[in-house]
Amino acid sequence: MLALHFDGRTARARDVPEPPASEGSARVRVALAGICNTDLELVKGYMGFRGVLGHEFTGTVEEGPEDWRGRRVVGEINFACGRCGTCRAGLPRHCPQRRVMGILEADGAFAEWVGVPVENLHAVPDAVSDEEAVFVEPLAAAFEILEQVEVPHGLDCVVLGDGKLGLLAAQVLQGAGARVCAVGRHAEKLAVLARRGIETALAEDWTPSPTSLVVEATGTAAGFERAIAATRPRGTLVLKSTVAPEAGRPAPDLAPLVIHEIQVVGSRCGPFEPALRALERGSVDVRSLVSDRVGLRDAEEGLRRAGQRGVLKVLIEP
Amino acid sequence: MLALHFDGRTARARDVPEPPASEGSARVRVALAGICNTDLELVKGYMGFRGVLGHEFTGTVEEGPEDWRGRRVVGEINFACGRCGTCRAGLPRHCPQRRVMGILEADGAFAEWVGVPVENLHAVPDAVSDEEAVFVEPLAAAFEILEQVEVPHGLDCVVLGDGKLGLLAAQVLQGAGARVCAVGRHAEKLAVLARRGIETALAEDWTPSPTSLVVEATGTAAGFERAIAATRPRGTLVLKSTVAPEAGRPAPDLAPLVIHEIQVVGSRCGPFEPALRALERGSVDVRSLVSDRVGLRDAEEGLRRAGQRGVLKVLIEP
Repeated sequence: MLALHFDGRTARARDVPEPPASEGSARVRVALAGICNTDLELVKGYMGFRGVLGHEFTGTVEEGPEDWRGRRVVGEINFACGRCGTCRAGLPRHCPQRRVMGILEADGAFAEWVGVPVENLHAVPDAVSDEEAVFVEPLAAAFEILEQVEVPHGLDCVVLGDGKLGLLAAQVLQGAGARVCAVGRHAEKLAVLARRGIETALAEDWTPSPTSLVVEATGTAAGFERAIAATRPRGTLVLKSTVAPEAGRPAPDLAPLVIHEIQVVGSRCGPFEPALRALERGSVDVRSLVSDRVGLRDAEEGLRRAGQRGVLKVLIEP
Repeated sequence: MLALHFDGRTARARDVPEPPASEGSARVRVALAGICNTDLELVKGYMGFRGVLGHEFTGTVEEGPEDWRGRRVVGEINFACGRCGTCRAGLPRHCPQRRVMGILEADGAFAEWVGVPVENLHAVPDAVSDEEAVFVEPLAAAFEILEQVEVPHGLDCVVLGDGKLGLLAAQVLQGAGARVCAVGRHAEKLAVLARRGIETALAEDWTPSPTSLVVEATGTAAGFERAIAATRPRGTLVLKSTVAPEAGRPAPDLAPLVIHEIQVVGSRCGPFEPALRALERGSVDVRSLVSDRVGLRDAEEGLRRAGQRGVLKVLIEP
């Protein structure tokens, strides 16, 4: 089958073996897949990954248990062992033996077919289009915030970063009843939120003031420092993206975390069901986040496009 | 009166004006004061403080409201405005207009007398000696952990650092029912904990393994990185001391916070009452932490002594 394969040096569309049929696993024909910033990091060497890229997808089960065959699905990306202490403690997404689709020792979804453990599948309701369903994985990551932090009605929140995750997090927090201000560097991206009644500010015009809940989704050291400055005493700072250390930049001053007793919450993958329900209700706009669509043969070009300034989601259509 | 005064360059015992009598304030004759690592930082320039040093003390009220006169007391160190939003939200220790005894715009307790707002006073029970009562402030900082983090019986904890705060935190966590392992660099300091049945390990012999609650009390960048490595997925890391950025040391890798969804809780000053009750019950050993006692005239020498390797608490006896 055709797939976007990364050999450790270059990612290119080429012929690879189809995912093998195995017990407990379903073979899904990919309808649509999405390029995530993590994919851009992987092709720079992150995780030392080799194989088929892609972990955001929707498709139809072609092979697998009878009750799943023919159904439109999305799939959770952490393939847990199901037996270790972490799995038994109800944290399969943190299983230390886990493989992760398109990220760690498991082939991904930039392909005609992808293999997914049956317990990772979620059915997609009819009311949710493929173009929406392909956002379930990143939207679930935004919903993870609500799993980790209590968000009472009217809570003052700031979301830093107007990338895909920032735009989704701002909408999820607004949906939970928070008063959200989204801060970013791109007027056209922030406009997606403004259309939904969310307050927005351009980073250059914005001054941090004490806020109860701050979501850092810029992935930059500068963003992290601004997030600390924006969090009120005893407030919460959700770290939604990994902050790459920058050569030559001094270590961030963490003293304010202690002085103001700030709580920093690392936040990664999240629950699929609330994401599916939000898309079903139409309470989150994901369509406005689509910048481009490419075929699988042009997936390399899609990766390049996804890395360009101002571009949000690039979808791959096998 | 005689006091240890810091003029921005040197700390020396000299004559200074007595604390003025003022409404809502008590004048306390200091019986005993303790040197804290923060004092050592202040004389290096931290906070730009000028004035009488010292914020750990116990003494007797000589002037103030009638019901306080003659009583043995300790005093909370954050002098809040009592009127702002933060104070009204029940967080006076975080009042943005606060003065802090011996740290920020308020004279401290390395003196014959110290002035303390009446609402900051706590009576010392008869069963608690001066030598114990002088530890209430740092012990309260250790109890702050229990205000911020749920500690179910049997929770696995690691305390990194065998300085004064580490030794107090380990005892407080053990008292709360946690299974504590204290890690430090000084066998003789760890022995204080071993005598109370707390597991200890020398840092050089210890390898981080996934732990539910990790308390970082080394105040070093290396300690913070080890603390991250020791915290299990979805575990909690309490930052109990400010980590000074070290010139030339690369920024810590914070990606594990996101990947493992770790919660970092900054933790500073704490509640005095549980600290007083613990000393009353004799459930925390503070006497073993006293390394030395000096008179106020020798307070400069006391500061030097407190900065030496292997030394725990140095007390000042005015």
